[in-house]
Amino acid sequence: MMNTNPDPHAMWAKMKKNSDGLVPAITQDYENNQVLMMAYMNEEAFCLTCETGYMHYYSRSRDTLWKKGETSGHFQKVIEAYIDCDKDTLLYKIDQTGAACHTGNRTCFYTELNNWDLSHNEEE
Amino acid sequence: MMNTNPDPHAMWAKMKKNSDGLVPAITQDYENNQVLMMAYMNEEAFCLTCETGYMHYYSRSRDTLWKKGETSGHFQKVIEAYIDCDKDTLLYKIDQTGAACHTGNRTCFYTELNNWDLSHNEEE
Repeated sequence: MMNTNPDPHAMWAKMKKNSDGLVPAITQDYENNQVLMMAYMNEEAFCLTCETGYMHYYSRSRDTLWKKGETSGHFQKVIEAYIDCDKDTLLYKIDQTGAACHTGNRTCFYTELNNWDLSHNEEE
Repeated sequence: MMNTNPDPHAMWAKMKKNSDGLVPAITQDYENNQVLMMAYMNEEAFCLTCETGYMHYYSRSRDTLWKKGETSGHFQKVIEAYIDCDKDTLLYKIDQTGAACHTGNRTCFYTELNNWDLSHNEEE
């Protein structure tokens, strides 16, 4: 269950924001602990995630709020949510429908540094 | 083994930096996939991590490079290293000596949002 405890806005007020006023959120598969992606939240995204139990993010490039899966159907249902000791990073254990990555990979972290082809200009 | 493949400086040049010119790095226990912490790297920290096989970070608050474990002995040996699809976040699977968190907890993500005591001003 997502938090019913403190007011999401009160929690947001206690977090340390980055230079863009955002907080990074890591998502992890709740079953096997695979790290799936990292994206950013603004206050609205954080509060909607708390209130709906589904991951919402803020897109820096598009300057918009987005519910993960809204277009792809690849929703992320929150199972557990944590804040770190510095109160500047969030970690969500989630139930991922389909792939987390827009490339179709289960995780966004599919490129090992050893195998990263720098000559390839990826537009994925 | 850490990467022997491309030049670390060439890899760094291909990454998307955040507004502070840094790249966030998530560390994960290579044995059980527990997420341990997230911190930031500048070019020097990234290259030293590549070259030594031990996690180095850039401290935003202290404006210095630090090798994790330098004072605590809690070193982080790199086992695998990944970059995400957007080339703006790093993920390291590491062998953690002792606790990752300066509080003595194994992970920095020990506070569930449900149990976060907002009335407590933590100076941990």
